[in-house]
Amino acid sequence: MPPGLELSEEDLQGDLDRRRPGQSKVTTQRRERDRARILSGVFEGRTTGASIAVLIDNHDQRPRDYREIRDKYRPGHADYTFDAKYGFRDYRGGGRSSARETNVRVAAGAIAKKLLRERHGVRVVGYVAQVGAVRAAVADPAAVTLEQVEANIVRCPDPEAAARMIELIEQVRADRDSIGGCAEIVATGVPAGWGEPVFDKLKADLGKALFSLPAVLGVEYGAGFAVVTARGSDNNDPFVAADEGIRTLGNRHGGMLGGISSGMPIVLRCAVKPTSSIPRPQQTVTRELEPTTISVKGRHDPCLVPRFVPMAEAMTAIVLADHMLRQQALR
Amino acid sequence: MPPGLELSEEDLQGDLDRRRPGQSKVTTQRRERDRARILSGVFEGRTTGASIAVLIDNHDQRPRDYREIRDKYRPGHADYTFDAKYGFRDYRGGGRSSARETNVRVAAGAIAKKLLRERHGVRVVGYVAQVGAVRAAVADPAAVTLEQVEANIVRCPDPEAAARMIELIEQVRADRDSIGGCAEIVATGVPAGWGEPVFDKLKADLGKALFSLPAVLGVEYGAGFAVVTARGSDNNDPFVAADEGIRTLGNRHGGMLGGISSGMPIVLRCAVKPTSSIPRPQQTVTRELEPTTISVKGRHDPCLVPRFVPMAEAMTAIVLADHMLRQQALR
Amino acid sequence: MPPGLELSEEDLQGDLDRRRPGQSKVTTQRRERDRARILSGVFEGRTTGASIAVLIDNHDQRPRDYREIRDKYRPGHADYTFDAKYGFRDYRGGGRSSARETNVRVAAGAIAKKLLRERHGVRVVGYVAQVGAVRAAVADPAAVTLEQVEANIVRCPDPEAAARMIELIEQVRADRDSIGGCAEIVATGVPAGWGEPVFDKLKADLGKALFSLPAVLGVEYGAGFAVVTARGSDNNDPFVAADEGIRTLGNRHGGMLGGISSGMPIVLRCAVKPTSSIPRPQQTVTRELEPTTISVKGRHDPCLVPRFVPMAEAMTAIVLADHMLRQQALR
Amino acid sequence: MPPGLELSEEDLQGDLDRRRPGQSKVTTQRRERDRARILSGVFEGRTTGASIAVLIDNHDQRPRDYREIRDKYRPGHADYTFDAKYGFRDYRGGGRSSARETNVRVAAGAIAKKLLRERHGVRVVGYVAQVGAVRAAVADPAAVTLEQVEANIVRCPDPEAAARMIELIEQVRADRDSIGGCAEIVATGVPAGWGEPVFDKLKADLGKALFSLPAVLGVEYGAGFAVVTARGSDNNDPFVAADEGIRTLGNRHGGMLGGISSGMPIVLRCAVKPTSSIPRPQQTVTRELEPTTISVKGRHDPCLVPRFVPMAEAMTAIVLADHMLRQQALR
Repeated sequence: MPPGLELSEEDLQGDLDRRRPGQSKVTTQRRERDRARILSGVFEGRTTGASIAVLIDNHDQRPRDYREIRDKYRPGHADYTFDAKYGFRDYRGGGRSSARETNVRVAAGAIAKKLLRERHGVRVVGYVAQVGAVRAAVADPAAVTLEQVEANIVRCPDPEAAARMIELIEQVRADRDSIGGCAEIVATGVPAGWGEPVFDKLKADLGKALFSLPAVLGVEYGAGFAVVTARGSDNNDPFVAADEGIRTLGNRHGGMLGGISSGMPIVLRCAVKPTSSIPRPQQTVTRELEPTTISVKGRHDPCLVPRFVPMAEAMTAIVLADHMLRQQALR
Repeated sequence: MPPGLELSEEDLQGDLDRRRPGQSKVTTQRRERDRARILSGVFEGRTTGASIAVLIDNHDQRPRDYREIRDKYRPGHADYTFDAKYGFRDYRGGGRSSARETNVRVAAGAIAKKLLRERHGVRVVGYVAQVGAVRAAVADPAAVTLEQVEANIVRCPDPEAAARMIELIEQVRADRDSIGGCAEIVATGVPAGWGEPVFDKLKADLGKALFSLPAVLGVEYGAGFAVVTARGSDNNDPFVAADEGIRTLGNRHGGMLGGISSGMPIVLRCAVKPTSSIPRPQQTVTRELEPTTISVKGRHDPCLVPRFVPMAEAMTAIVLADHMLRQQALR
Repeated sequence: MPPGLELSEEDLQGDLDRRRPGQSKVTTQRRERDRARILSGVFEGRTTGASIAVLIDNHDQRPRDYREIRDKYRPGHADYTFDAKYGFRDYRGGGRSSARETNVRVAAGAIAKKLLRERHGVRVVGYVAQVGAVRAAVADPAAVTLEQVEANIVRCPDPEAAARMIELIEQVRADRDSIGGCAEIVATGVPAGWGEPVFDKLKADLGKALFSLPAVLGVEYGAGFAVVTARGSDNNDPFVAADEGIRTLGNRHGGMLGGISSGMPIVLRCAVKPTSSIPRPQQTVTRELEPTTISVKGRHDPCLVPRFVPMAEAMTAIVLADHMLRQQALR
Repeated sequence: MPPGLELSEEDLQGDLDRRRPGQSKVTTQRRERDRARILSGVFEGRTTGASIAVLIDNHDQRPRDYREIRDKYRPGHADYTFDAKYGFRDYRGGGRSSARETNVRVAAGAIAKKLLRERHGVRVVGYVAQVGAVRAAVADPAAVTLEQVEANIVRCPDPEAAARMIELIEQVRADRDSIGGCAEIVATGVPAGWGEPVFDKLKADLGKALFSLPAVLGVEYGAGFAVVTARGSDNNDPFVAADEGIRTLGNRHGGMLGGISSGMPIVLRCAVKPTSSIPRPQQTVTRELEPTTISVKGRHDPCLVPRFVPMAEAMTAIVLADHMLRQQALR
């Protein structure tokens, strides 16, 4: 982290509040305060260049909710794979595999966002593009503002779609079920030239960062999977000269060519699976391999994607900040 | 690389031949012999534990083909982004951004595959799942064999779809155009427990590796983007007890839960864009920002995905081998 | 960290107490409780395989002691170099360059030691070999026990030398000065085969780890700088067959050959400079380049090396544990 | 590697010739041409920003020299530790543990040196400070020039000492023995601010790099092991204001404080053991643990340190270039 950036715990709180449980009726009702304490790396209100340690205490643990999952493997969860890897596991709240682990990523992302915004004019904004079959209509992803996103509890900049998404999520919750969704993240202001040509392509590092988030089963850039049916003559974005330099007509390439940013907005989408924890009874086995059923108790989101948005923004910003530093090193 | 594995240059050649240009009528007619020389790390036919250096000389350079692209930015290529990053570029054959760079990955992947196969019973097989709108019908991805894949020049295990894919690619070539496609990669025999719980999730490292390949605009696991419209009650794969231990009914999770392998086949798909190099005239600009057109000469694949298959297999095998080593370290 | 190791905060406390200030009359009288809290990675008394976070709060800050050093550069300290690097610095207690930073290394080292000891029979013991001109007489470094080391406040297993070291340190303190010293660290039970052949040689990773500690100006293994005047015929340790396998006569090589452990004890020494903070007035400049003098107030060790011993043991154990994992990965 | 630096194979050859065997009567008479070929990363005479691959073929292998060492462990060599680690080894010429491995480091170091010199005004010069008991008298390490170093075959800038060193080495060779030595490396022009505050201290990364070279048993900076007997009042280098900014009186700190460069010359010394390969019979064991003797045949240096100088310069330059990049990233 470069020195001299003004930073306080308040800078982290905005995104932490966007991620925290219990924020609205479409999320889990579990309440976590998620107050970040900065333990190092900031002095007299500015970053020092030293590592920034952030601690977020957990004040709403309820271990009693998790007793059943000690012995039964929840479908869709990491209970079994952790046991297979380590021989045993911390079964309270998912332990290390809990989505709660992402709050520190959001805190780190808030710092990366501020650095990118104040020193490089880069903005990272995400939103819910789809819940179930309900798609948002977004004319220009690069024009979406944080205010539009935060105008409703599903974080969808299309108000009409947002209303239908909320309706769908409430229906799903009433069905004691969950639903998947898709988040779109856009980074504007990234200059051409960030990224690396071979293994650490910008799309590769972003891909790793986004797939490191729980519940993500797909990542795509620009036209994404639609390129499968496209022809080169339609898919190539022609270069044109603009006042601000070279630009492309269209952005099917998603803002990166050859692993390096093109100066166009970086546009990506993540497929987020429906919450694995559902109150319906599901077929599974115990640790002793005996067939059984499980109804996952506790307080869970019927749809993960509204709270996923700040997580994906954070990972995107962290990767962009890293590549900004790498590019500066070459000068 | 662990010591003691029998290894010769012949072990690398099979996959290099699957990747090399000029192998069939659906690929570029550029001819590269792609003979790998092992320079270190093998002694008396076995790996020594030291780094294995592989050198593949290029015997079919034709620098005259590339003169025009010195001054004009090819749409869809990294010419402009390299110039933006580095101030100038090696314009011969795409330089570092050439897909030719992937042949050493394929060589390394062949070694990883052999290690995984001989010591751990893991097999990595890929195939073309879709070209344009033509989809393969594959009943069980985990049952596809290398022989089925190599039975036709598009590497599609569904012979009927393969014929239509070939027809489509020939049509596209006749149109002086190119077409996108989708490759599916399956790893069978991976035991439960490979992967890491947080940043280096197996799906994250695979994602980085696959997105580090040229032309990949999307990666998905298991049900992939279809989870967006799914409900948890359908999407969760129930656990069952089988003779060989714990398995799941269905494999929408794609063989990884919480970033760690589940013992089910790992199934992933990559969206590969249509070749950017097409002979049709395309709009672009020169290095001096003057509008112009370019018709990319040279010998290019009308569809990248048949030759992409061994590249994606290689990256998958390399990541799996790394995580196998990490898991062994814990014992 | 492998899973399943029994671990509690008490396991960390022993070494933290050996490092903490205020432990005896030869150290600083600054009192830090240094109670470690384990925040993650341990469940029901055993490591889970997840990252272990350790937090040690600082309860004895006295910011008023550090006001003068805000504007003047203390000779021998990092005040100036931090300003040159970052443009400003956290001047309280040295900020990131404070030796207090090493307490978490000691905590991590205690975990590495326990893992090495319980699962691999490796023991890491350090002691003070020299203070000023007073040298310890140690017949066999590999036979020194923790009990012998902790039998006196300078951590010197030679009681007669220890008494003279204490006398010297008290004299130096009375002179308002400080004195250098040398610590010797011995790791016994390391099997032959840990380490890497080229860049990550065991001696290289140990060297980095030890030089990353404050105040270390020299590191040597086995015969160390004495090899400069030696002849090969005397310096080579002959191999012999022993009951427990291959051993060497003598251990001038310090337990590593070609960067890989030989099965003999690993023996290394660190040169630790005299404390830079001394109460005597010293010549320096202000941030505005004006000549001035400074008398460093506060509570400082007249000799760093007794408290350095657990730090160097910790770094040695951490590196050995890492290479143990790397070696296990090959099996 | 930053783009745009003029670079050709000739830039690498100078240092390769300083390292190569057979260069003078005090080195081994083995003749290696050591011609470097640059395979990638340079285009039209300038670096492109891509990785630079350098290949140096070995034209003077004589496998027949190495047959005896297949079955016997040479004292002081890595034969046994490689067998212990890997189960077998490439016994030809030491395989991966051969000092020949360092020639690519020297090639890479030549590139780093050129970058540091041309863009940052940094010069890295090394010399032989001691052979056996013969010490060079060097008034100011920072004033030693490459021309002074290369004026004689032992690379000692003190001509009188050089003569005695040559005499000693010839005597040792006549005795069928070998002798140790000490090299001193000086980097001038390094600005204050390169390095990192905690684990990647500049002295730590330099220490790792130097200890990764064969035969190094000790590394020290500035006053080095002499700090053991020093008092703080003498050891601290006072800060003073000079025309070029802040400097210190004296340089006992060796040019780094808190792990970060101080703007003073970086001065370090490496203890290099006497060549392990000596023609005298030495006691050892076979792979089957039977006692035997070995007389190492082949063509070996009686003293390693003259050829060690360019290796140590190279590793120093590589680490400095890395930290230069890291510091530039912060701007």
